[in-house]
Amino acid sequence: MNRRFLLARRPHGVPVPADFALVEAPVPTPPPGGLVVRNHYCSLDPAQRGWMDDAPSYMPPIALGDPVRATTVGVVHASDNPEFRPGDWVMGLNGIEDYSVCAPGGFTMKVDVTQVASPSLFLSAMGAVGLTGYFGLLEVAKPQPGEVLLVSGAAGAVGSAVGQIGKIVGCRTIGIAGGPDKCRRLLTDYGFDVAIDYKGKSVTELAAEIRAAAPGGVNIVFENVGGTVMDAEMLNLAKHARIVLCGLISEYNLAEKYGLRNLWPILTQQATLYGYLIMDYAPRFAEAGAVMAQWMAEGRLRIDEDVQEGLENAYEAFMRLFTGANTGKLVLKIA
Amino acid sequence: MNRRFLLARRPHGVPVPADFALVEAPVPTPPPGGLVVRNHYCSLDPAQRGWMDDAPSYMPPIALGDPVRATTVGVVHASDNPEFRPGDWVMGLNGIEDYSVCAPGGFTMKVDVTQVASPSLFLSAMGAVGLTGYFGLLEVAKPQPGEVLLVSGAAGAVGSAVGQIGKIVGCRTIGIAGGPDKCRRLLTDYGFDVAIDYKGKSVTELAAEIRAAAPGGVNIVFENVGGTVMDAEMLNLAKHARIVLCGLISEYNLAEKYGLRNLWPILTQQATLYGYLIMDYAPRFAEAGAVMAQWMAEGRLRIDEDVQEGLENAYEAFMRLFTGANTGKLVLKIA
Repeated sequence: MNRRFLLARRPHGVPVPADFALVEAPVPTPPPGGLVVRNHYCSLDPAQRGWMDDAPSYMPPIALGDPVRATTVGVVHASDNPEFRPGDWVMGLNGIEDYSVCAPGGFTMKVDVTQVASPSLFLSAMGAVGLTGYFGLLEVAKPQPGEVLLVSGAAGAVGSAVGQIGKIVGCRTIGIAGGPDKCRRLLTDYGFDVAIDYKGKSVTELAAEIRAAAPGGVNIVFENVGGTVMDAEMLNLAKHARIVLCGLISEYNLAEKYGLRNLWPILTQQATLYGYLIMDYAPRFAEAGAVMAQWMAEGRLRIDEDVQEGLENAYEAFMRLFTGANTGKLVLKIA
Repeated sequence: MNRRFLLARRPHGVPVPADFALVEAPVPTPPPGGLVVRNHYCSLDPAQRGWMDDAPSYMPPIALGDPVRATTVGVVHASDNPEFRPGDWVMGLNGIEDYSVCAPGGFTMKVDVTQVASPSLFLSAMGAVGLTGYFGLLEVAKPQPGEVLLVSGAAGAVGSAVGQIGKIVGCRTIGIAGGPDKCRRLLTDYGFDVAIDYKGKSVTELAAEIRAAAPGGVNIVFENVGGTVMDAEMLNLAKHARIVLCGLISEYNLAEKYGLRNLWPILTQQATLYGYLIMDYAPRFAEAGAVMAQWMAEGRLRIDEDVQEGLENAYEAFMRLFTGANTGKLVLKIA
């Protein structure tokens, strides 16, 4: 049987268990030219919360009654396509379910699991999440040695990769995270030069802490959080700063968006804010994944995973993203 | 005597007459290497409101007791610099006063008033305001023929220039302005393809009107207004849209900034928002001013001026910017 974690209704604000349903269905068969993948690991990401809303976005909303869309890595179970044979490991944009029907193309690609310690790494370091940091920093922000890089959500899966890649290319790195444990990990595990705890601080207080860490202003902001954290960052832009707008996790469960109140400094500092999605870079995943693997092998890049187990625990696992409980890239192991 | 329109205290919200003082002082003498200009016309611009606040910005705040900073055009009255001789016409960043002391360099440059119908044109079409539109559209947004250009504050001095330059380079132009009279002028005077009146409309209603005018989305937003108008615009971005953040006139008199609530579409549409100031382009003013003059001579570009008279009327004239009363580039004639 195929257990499927469906979106039963659209969450209003914070998702609750009744927004989802775990059902059983027959194992599907491949459509013409397609394949069926036995999913082993499902990626759990803040972006999924956005896909649950019925709002215009970069992808259609998840349809009610469909499994929650997720990047997965797994093994070809059955195939009607000569390029994919049963037993091949593949990654793709599928669903939180035991078996997914998928079409070749797009994000669906074969992966060589013999290169890595765990296939789950294709959902973290060498998948969309790690590579979101790689391309967002190197291709969008284009850091120069000696520049100051400020990362919000810095202990998260994307943020921790961004901070480390920033160090590799010669930036001074400041990470913002919530709570003393995460801030300690920014320094000990991810090599940030400065860690700032945003919790319990006003915009003014947080802005003053950033200013103390970067008196000359920040050249690059890698934004994963939004809200008051971003407002504080905007008060510390260096002239011609670049802001990579990668995520706004503080907003996803808000019915009324906070947005950005401190828009004016972007004008006065002649800064540029880039709305950033990784999708356009999919053709370069293999190339960038090889660089990430090399950095990991050299001990220069540490990618932590938070592996939760069991399809039946999908809701509780997903909610770890919003409670701040997860440490590292959140992954659900289902086989 | 030199009449001077001073900033007496910092306005809180909407400026009131008591924030300013008109005083008389002796006519100054040139400092070593500098000059004294008899101002004939002073530019009145929304940016001046920002300079009155004691907040970090791209220029220092106007000091209390100093004249309100303004671009002016006038005649050299006395000079200690061989490049500027009495009788030469010059423009520069000076003050709202009869006579300004100024140093060569920066925005201070000689102008040829024989080229133009009125010296005030060096404060509009061929000055910082007209050229703000020129460089912001052509150099920052880089429009392509057939693209949709959306301009807020479209009946204003910058906006009306942007819309017309957009038509010259082959864009479809949509202008947003307040009230039926301004909207009529967008169509009859400035050649916009569509005029939208924002007054009395919610974000949702305004967004729907923009969508009806540009069902495929907007490629370029030239933003002069901010607030709910900008929020509505953000709901209509085409993929990879460019937003030129040139001004936020709806914010300048707010103690609590509204900012931008609809930040998320910038991410999902992979749009880029450019904080834009004209200052970096000052070395190219003569080149661009010649192009603007040529377009005006050919009847392809109409620059309207709203010339108010008398230094004693500076406050009332300035406030026309915020009541929506002014039509065209606002200028104060003082000699």
